[in-house]
Amino acid sequence: MSFFWFLFVDLNNTIIKYNEFMSLSKNQLKLITRLQQKKYRQKHKLFVVEGIKVVEEFLHSSYELEMLFSTENSFSHLDTFIEVSDQELKKISSLKTPNKVLAIFKIPEKKFIKPSGLIVALDGVNNPGNLGTIIRLCDWFGVKQLICSNETVDCYNTKVVQASMGSLTRIEISYTDLQEYLSCISIPKFIADMEGENIYKTKLDSEAVLVMGNESNGISDSIMDIVDTKVSIPRFGNCQQTESLNVATATAIMLSEFRR
Amino acid sequence: MSFFWFLFVDLNNTIIKYNEFMSLSKNQLKLITRLQQKKYRQKHKLFVVEGIKVVEEFLHSSYELEMLFSTENSFSHLDTFIEVSDQELKKISSLKTPNKVLAIFKIPEKKFIKPSGLIVALDGVNNPGNLGTIIRLCDWFGVKQLICSNETVDCYNTKVVQASMGSLTRIEISYTDLQEYLSCISIPKFIADMEGENIYKTKLDSEAVLVMGNESNGISDSIMDIVDTKVSIPRFGNCQQTESLNVATATAIMLSEFRR
Repeated sequence: MSFFWFLFVDLNNTIIKYNEFMSLSKNQLKLITRLQQKKYRQKHKLFVVEGIKVVEEFLHSSYELEMLFSTENSFSHLDTFIEVSDQELKKISSLKTPNKVLAIFKIPEKKFIKPSGLIVALDGVNNPGNLGTIIRLCDWFGVKQLICSNETVDCYNTKVVQASMGSLTRIEISYTDLQEYLSCISIPKFIADMEGENIYKTKLDSEAVLVMGNESNGISDSIMDIVDTKVSIPRFGNCQQTESLNVATATAIMLSEFRR
Repeated sequence: MSFFWFLFVDLNNTIIKYNEFMSLSKNQLKLITRLQQKKYRQKHKLFVVEGIKVVEEFLHSSYELEMLFSTENSFSHLDTFIEVSDQELKKISSLKTPNKVLAIFKIPEKKFIKPSGLIVALDGVNNPGNLGTIIRLCDWFGVKQLICSNETVDCYNTKVVQASMGSLTRIEISYTDLQEYLSCISIPKFIADMEGENIYKTKLDSEAVLVMGNESNGISDSIMDIVDTKVSIPRFGNCQQTESLNVATATAIMLSEFRR
């Protein structure tokens, strides 16, 4: 008898979700753990989002939900809802304090985007927190397109998703050969560089690309050659020892200058 | 014979440091571990700095060195140098990749600072990375004084020290009752607030206090009442969902506006 019952629930997805036997499976645990690595995200075309607020922003966006695990019943109307215990959520969460829900979304297909308006391009930004902050800044300053060199940290990295706080749903992010991309487009190209001219005194176009470099090495030589204008944020006072501003704070100041 | 030799090295500090028997003691390990907690930093009036570059900035500042542990001989001229193995450094380091040296410095005595120029005040900033970034920004923009409410994260917290990258040696930081402090000073007070006037259109004084709030709750009501002008960074595009900018990036943009 019980055999048939299990067969029934297995065939019927809509019943399975409310079933008390339903909880986190070994395969799901394995999948979620694997999605911490870029190669598995690319293989499965899936990524992880955590926390009620951020998950809700993704649910209300064009991103397609694959599975949702939660300790709360408020998501039980979703077909792919799986109820988990606090212990189970802790097991799959990458947060110190898991926040009630972990969802897996599909990575959308790449599409070609025609350059328009102000664009930010990143040449090898490594730190997930920095990329997350830059995505949030693009959202704030109405920058719709973010072009990343292939060496830039993956925007579906869990830490990036958490740091960008839902802004990821509103920005078009593409990974490409940045040198090739910049060579092909004809709008003015500005590059953040310590040796550049004072950004406060530079004429900044409203249709332009702003290129920001890697945390330690700045902009690659090959990209430096294609760029029209180098801009820098001047130092104040006699703080000659402060080496440079963090790439995320420098992006904040530069985007503010472009938009003010 | 060996007994006397040990006695000799124990009495003679200048020999002890080159002695191969000298390495990390249990008490030192305990002290360093304890210094991760604020109460022990306050009790011992000591804090930890790591990494060659940052330690060197502290050595060239007015901070007084207590002890220095390194895998490198380049610090062996210092009286308080203790050579450690890679394994020992890993044990005491709070970095994922320890960088050759860990030093303990003395927390300087508090002194009264007369308000002058542009001052930044923090009302309960919690995140060590944010405080570190703000210290670095003060350094860049020539802000000499940073006033923290007593609820703000300790500036000698290891993560703050690492994130501020030596800028801590150039900024005067005081912890105080912020409400009382702001009530007593007569220079113009600006507060970062979502409801404030457009900072790009506000007259910003060169002698002023800029108050930034807590990551989740913003500015306390009691402080809101004392302030002269509320300023905000306007949103661009139709990103009504982006809740707010991170406190460190907002500080970056606001300091840039004060100085440009």
